[in-house]
Amino acid sequence: MTTASYPAQRLDRDRAAILLVDHQVGLILGVEDPEKELLRRNVVAVAKIAKAYGLPVVITTSADGGPNGILLPEISAELPDAPVIRRPGEIDAFDNAEFAAAVKATGRDQLIVAGISTDVCVSFAAMSAVAAGYQVHAVLDASGTWNQLATKAAAARMEQAGVTLNNTVAVAAELQRDWREKGGQELAELFANYAIPFYGSLIPYVTPAA
Amino acid sequence: MTTASYPAQRLDRDRAAILLVDHQVGLILGVEDPEKELLRRNVVAVAKIAKAYGLPVVITTSADGGPNGILLPEISAELPDAPVIRRPGEIDAFDNAEFAAAVKATGRDQLIVAGISTDVCVSFAAMSAVAAGYQVHAVLDASGTWNQLATKAAAARMEQAGVTLNNTVAVAAELQRDWREKGGQELAELFANYAIPFYGSLIPYVTPAA
Amino acid sequence: MTTASYPAQRLDRDRAAILLVDHQVGLILGVEDPEKELLRRNVVAVAKIAKAYGLPVVITTSADGGPNGILLPEISAELPDAPVIRRPGEIDAFDNAEFAAAVKATGRDQLIVAGISTDVCVSFAAMSAVAAGYQVHAVLDASGTWNQLATKAAAARMEQAGVTLNNTVAVAAELQRDWREKGGQELAELFANYAIPFYGSLIPYVTPAA
Amino acid sequence: MTTASYPAQRLDRDRAAILLVDHQVGLILGVEDPEKELLRRNVVAVAKIAKAYGLPVVITTSADGGPNGILLPEISAELPDAPVIRRPGEIDAFDNAEFAAAVKATGRDQLIVAGISTDVCVSFAAMSAVAAGYQVHAVLDASGTWNQLATKAAAARMEQAGVTLNNTVAVAAELQRDWREKGGQELAELFANYAIPFYGSLIPYVTPAA
Amino acid sequence: MTTASYPAQRLDRDRAAILLVDHQVGLILGVEDPEKELLRRNVVAVAKIAKAYGLPVVITTSADGGPNGILLPEISAELPDAPVIRRPGEIDAFDNAEFAAAVKATGRDQLIVAGISTDVCVSFAAMSAVAAGYQVHAVLDASGTWNQLATKAAAARMEQAGVTLNNTVAVAAELQRDWREKGGQELAELFANYAIPFYGSLIPYVTPAA
Amino acid sequence: MTTASYPAQRLDRDRAAILLVDHQVGLILGVEDPEKELLRRNVVAVAKIAKAYGLPVVITTSADGGPNGILLPEISAELPDAPVIRRPGEIDAFDNAEFAAAVKATGRDQLIVAGISTDVCVSFAAMSAVAAGYQVHAVLDASGTWNQLATKAAAARMEQAGVTLNNTVAVAAELQRDWREKGGQELAELFANYAIPFYGSLIPYVTPAA
Amino acid sequence: MTTASYPAQRLDRDRAAILLVDHQVGLILGVEDPEKELLRRNVVAVAKIAKAYGLPVVITTSADGGPNGILLPEISAELPDAPVIRRPGEIDAFDNAEFAAAVKATGRDQLIVAGISTDVCVSFAAMSAVAAGYQVHAVLDASGTWNQLATKAAAARMEQAGVTLNNTVAVAAELQRDWREKGGQELAELFANYAIPFYGSLIPYVTPAA
Amino acid sequence: MTTASYPAQRLDRDRAAILLVDHQVGLILGVEDPEKELLRRNVVAVAKIAKAYGLPVVITTSADGGPNGILLPEISAELPDAPVIRRPGEIDAFDNAEFAAAVKATGRDQLIVAGISTDVCVSFAAMSAVAAGYQVHAVLDASGTWNQLATKAAAARMEQAGVTLNNTVAVAAELQRDWREKGGQELAELFANYAIPFYGSLIPYVTPAA
Repeated sequence: MTTASYPAQRLDRDRAAILLVDHQVGLILGVEDPEKELLRRNVVAVAKIAKAYGLPVVITTSADGGPNGILLPEISAELPDAPVIRRPGEIDAFDNAEFAAAVKATGRDQLIVAGISTDVCVSFAAMSAVAAGYQVHAVLDASGTWNQLATKAAAARMEQAGVTLNNTVAVAAELQRDWREKGGQELAELFANYAIPFYGSLIPYVTPAA
Repeated sequence: MTTASYPAQRLDRDRAAILLVDHQVGLILGVEDPEKELLRRNVVAVAKIAKAYGLPVVITTSADGGPNGILLPEISAELPDAPVIRRPGEIDAFDNAEFAAAVKATGRDQLIVAGISTDVCVSFAAMSAVAAGYQVHAVLDASGTWNQLATKAAAARMEQAGVTLNNTVAVAAELQRDWREKGGQELAELFANYAIPFYGSLIPYVTPAA
Repeated sequence: MTTASYPAQRLDRDRAAILLVDHQVGLILGVEDPEKELLRRNVVAVAKIAKAYGLPVVITTSADGGPNGILLPEISAELPDAPVIRRPGEIDAFDNAEFAAAVKATGRDQLIVAGISTDVCVSFAAMSAVAAGYQVHAVLDASGTWNQLATKAAAARMEQAGVTLNNTVAVAAELQRDWREKGGQELAELFANYAIPFYGSLIPYVTPAA
Repeated sequence: MTTASYPAQRLDRDRAAILLVDHQVGLILGVEDPEKELLRRNVVAVAKIAKAYGLPVVITTSADGGPNGILLPEISAELPDAPVIRRPGEIDAFDNAEFAAAVKATGRDQLIVAGISTDVCVSFAAMSAVAAGYQVHAVLDASGTWNQLATKAAAARMEQAGVTLNNTVAVAAELQRDWREKGGQELAELFANYAIPFYGSLIPYVTPAA
Repeated sequence: MTTASYPAQRLDRDRAAILLVDHQVGLILGVEDPEKELLRRNVVAVAKIAKAYGLPVVITTSADGGPNGILLPEISAELPDAPVIRRPGEIDAFDNAEFAAAVKATGRDQLIVAGISTDVCVSFAAMSAVAAGYQVHAVLDASGTWNQLATKAAAARMEQAGVTLNNTVAVAAELQRDWREKGGQELAELFANYAIPFYGSLIPYVTPAA
Repeated sequence: MTTASYPAQRLDRDRAAILLVDHQVGLILGVEDPEKELLRRNVVAVAKIAKAYGLPVVITTSADGGPNGILLPEISAELPDAPVIRRPGEIDAFDNAEFAAAVKATGRDQLIVAGISTDVCVSFAAMSAVAAGYQVHAVLDASGTWNQLATKAAAARMEQAGVTLNNTVAVAAELQRDWREKGGQELAELFANYAIPFYGSLIPYVTPAA
Repeated sequence: MTTASYPAQRLDRDRAAILLVDHQVGLILGVEDPEKELLRRNVVAVAKIAKAYGLPVVITTSADGGPNGILLPEISAELPDAPVIRRPGEIDAFDNAEFAAAVKATGRDQLIVAGISTDVCVSFAAMSAVAAGYQVHAVLDASGTWNQLATKAAAARMEQAGVTLNNTVAVAAELQRDWREKGGQELAELFANYAIPFYGSLIPYVTPAA
Repeated sequence: MTTASYPAQRLDRDRAAILLVDHQVGLILGVEDPEKELLRRNVVAVAKIAKAYGLPVVITTSADGGPNGILLPEISAELPDAPVIRRPGEIDAFDNAEFAAAVKATGRDQLIVAGISTDVCVSFAAMSAVAAGYQVHAVLDASGTWNQLATKAAAARMEQAGVTLNNTVAVAAELQRDWREKGGQELAELFANYAIPFYGSLIPYVTPAA
């Protein structure tokens, strides 16, 4: 069985946790793939997905007193209670025992990982998580890196290591499963405002103003 | 044997059915990959492929009274008699029993799937179909999504799950096999008018006007 | 052992043949990936590779009296003696017995395939050739198709079927192996004039005019 | 176990060597993927990575008295003491006994390969190295080639042959492992000045001028 | 007074005529700017604009028995009664006396010009028309040419010569002036089906199906 | 004196008014130049510029009960008290007497115009405003249209008609003149959150968290 | 009267000369706008235009013993008898008395200028020629430069100085005037083989093979 | 006479000064047009041009203690003795009396202006300088801004105001005039290392290593 197994092993709101790795104000300034503001909107969407489905979140930053900068304030605002492991130096977050323990403490076996950069912090953490026995989904469009060849190399390597490649809208949809279930309303709102804002332009056509 | 086996398992007009998933007027407005009008032309081409080869078609929409909007009128016009399963909430079409039954009722074991979005409705349905034992071809350029990383993630995931990636022109050609067989004339017309319109500009050179 | 094995099974001038499939004047007008003139230069380069290494070539066209048009005159000029199998209707060239026999008659077990379109004529022929027991290399940049998703789907499908993806310059280099061997001078010339014309701009710096 | 295994087999400063293949002044003039100056900066970064971690380097050039031109002076300046094997004609560097011996003499079992072109000199050397039993990482963005389809074909082929695709920043990070270890300062500097120069613009915010 | 004067001299359905110059099946195959199918849709839109506002149209072709090919069948179908001046050789349509006379015979003083190519047939005719005393609008996106520098040069030259640069949607809107006037319904339809097809996807939201 | 005169006639918070023309939920769905979400952020920025400098705003919509859709809710939220002239059919807003009167009633002689589409509603209104004696600035990146040739034609035509081409950030800066004057803080915030969001990532470096 | 006057002052085969400025093998290697091989084909086309219409040509190179390299061999081959003024250092060719005299000696008053780079050698020579009283056409797509902003600046500056911007195909068409006149056959050939090679693919449809 | 007059008023090393406006570490992080590293290389080239020709330079920054950040260290390193006017708030540098005086004190009447952003600091300063009687050249590719429409608007506005648009390489060439004059060697070096680095790859072909 690989982590990609579907539908038997699809993402489940009772089994999944979210890892946000090094989404920091300095690092985002260097992102070229995807476009920076698309990334920013997807990152907020992922944070809101966590809230909508009650998923545990583990956040980590790297050397946040230096050039990498502090955690994106948008994440702090959405997830004020999530643990933030401030790594003093470890590049692979799973090399930091506190982080690994926090992940384990979620009790979840499906990990949804996003971060900056796709090729370093996301790729290393995702591959380590697979090695540790988790099912792992890397969210490509809520992660960013320096050029398209870096994305290409990281995606290929993660695929070979057993990581499932995924994207923001699909992760949300897989967790939701049915628009009528709990979370459907929040999902529509986060699509409309963050993940796919064209969607918000359609709502007035079917929802008369009060 | 994988669904990609060729030529032993190539698409066959006596074995194939077409699934059109959530090609709705609202959803197409958000498509960025591929370019929207290329997508629209390919969708019509796929509908015409169904007619040319007498393939059963199962159409489904998701929440078509809301922002997603109604089924593309171009599809309704081409395939007025095809069953349309209006899903009230299930995101993976195979989670809807009526849809799954309609697919089964076609009696076909090769499924050609296209829809919006590539990463959600196409990907989920295609992977579920593989799990249910069908051979599945996902038609990338008759499907659309929100950004190129979403296409990349969805394509990688479907490949790993055993879905064959395909495109409109190749699907048609694989079904036709020989231009001299029944359907050849219709195929040339749908190429010329929809799938690859440059082709239509060449016909006057070899077909004197009446 | 897969056809990709390297260096044990690398392309060899005593084992390889070249198949040129449907490089026709009408079809090239619809190519969008790669850029048309880059494709045209690579097609000539592949024809010249055949001459430089004495490789047998089998050429085929499809319905060349219709919109597809005649074989590219550049190919006819380079390879006037190569057999040209004019397929009356079969889309997969290996469905045409004459073509299959001509390939077999080369006595070669490594096939280098290029054509238009990548997703139909190249892909079908390449996959059939693998099924027939040949080692097969598809030359992506001497082949062309209608959009980038068609290339993506075709490349993925061929890879899964055991076709080795390759490109013009690498095919030539793999056959040449050592610049000092026979063919080195021809190779430099075809690089300079066709495959990578920037190279021709460097030669005057090291070769004083007569 | 494949060379992609992570973290069990991650790049290690005591196990890795770097191979720089045909980074020559003439060849770089023809590179179209990635953009030439991005490539040039990454090549210098890879040379500096070698120095920062004390990795043995083997450099090779091909016919450097002809159009290919001399080794990039930036490499000579960074690595004046590294052996340079000037291949008189062999295209696959491992066909040159002196080169193969120099690689073996490093005593390392992890090889990080970059060069021009991705599809010929990098791909052939990387696949030969896998065949010879090494773990091999190809650095896509410190290598260059003629068009995007050449990159696509080469990446696919190397992946199938067991080469790990990688990129400059990720290679450095994987070797460093922890910013507090030896090399961390050099790493920050090479990021700031070469691999991801946006990073240099952030340093003044956290490092008051003297 | 220049032809650009607005609103004093805006396009008027009682003063304007349309000139379609060399929209031929062969020439469109070479168009790179704008994208070919966008051009084709705009050409049909311009023909429909003529019908919607009752504007006289003068069509001309150049050497339509040769490689340039016949008039686009889409134009013949829309405007079966418009005069078609088949120029035997003159490149500037106003060098052909029959064409110049046909334009004069319209009795209009505002000319809306589109054609292939922007830099030759459109530019020459438009500049000659200005010299002959007409107000002239060149419709950039219903005209096509070979590369972006050709568009740039042609646009600059026409501007200097006193031609007003315009585009399909703006020409229609300028003629219509008020959606409630005659032609408004036709305008909405041609926007929805040809000039800006996204618009058609919005109509079902406000127009309940019958 | 033209409206472009600088600095004698630069935009002044005591002389300028803002016109927002047809920024409607349906129309924005068709915008291709600039990218839709960049446009949306700039539109909000322009609305906030009005508030920051106390500029009068006149808003207008076209047929907002039909496919064009309602005014962007983001504008309604920012400027709840600005007059909204709902044009029943006039395409050039100055053809609507109520709109022209509302503009005149602002008492301002400098007009900053943005809207959808650049080539119709913006261009027509801007050119009419020049004809009516106003100094007019068209804000290109807070306006949107269907393709790049439409932008090119509209920009050229407006320039010839005496409209000054401008962009969101420059309009704000021209009104502000000195960061220390009133409005400077609001300007920094709207840059950071809307017009150039990269700017927001820099603020934490110089503003310690509370 | 400006040099742009049309048709009164259109390019005339009895009045025009061609200046080719610094089309050298080294300089072309740095061209990024337009694409290098499109440039190379247009340069050959311009040389063939000179032959087709019997136009005098003055060629010049700059420091051709240094990095700039020798004159493109394609030009030498087409125009072996044209004078080549080898400038030892002057950047503006008209600062070289021998060049200025050679231009004057042609006895022509219309100058068609192309070269590398657009922003230096072409721009300076074209502006000096206008100052010296010539009518001047700069051929944008037979000239090349380093980035798109360089093209933009050079085009704007030349326009302001009274240079007419033009492109290869339009220059040829303006000289030819009527396809039936002398030169028509050569024009078709140079279009088919160099300036717009798609055209060559159409010829077989109307010209049966011998 | 306009500032564009050439050659009568060409840039002269005895008449020109350079203004560098707001090239700050924070602002460069937001530049999207041109590509950031191309901009950085051109900025260094402009600083070196000043040194090569002994041109006076006036540097200014805006609020360099805040998010805009300090002056690019590359500029400080090249021009340690140039005056730096730290503007506390004025956006148009000529609104700062100290800056205006420093420019005047250079005694030069030709001003070469570059900075960030093209549409604000460069455009305002350049237009004010024209109003103050200077000849002004804006260096587009040594300046940067937020999107292509901002460049378009700024370029159009500056052109209308009488600013000459220029680019790095052309400015240097116009000052140098003849490669044999003083400065030629420095010019070749700054081309090779900064403005057009491809040029550096050609030098080894004509300059044997020591």
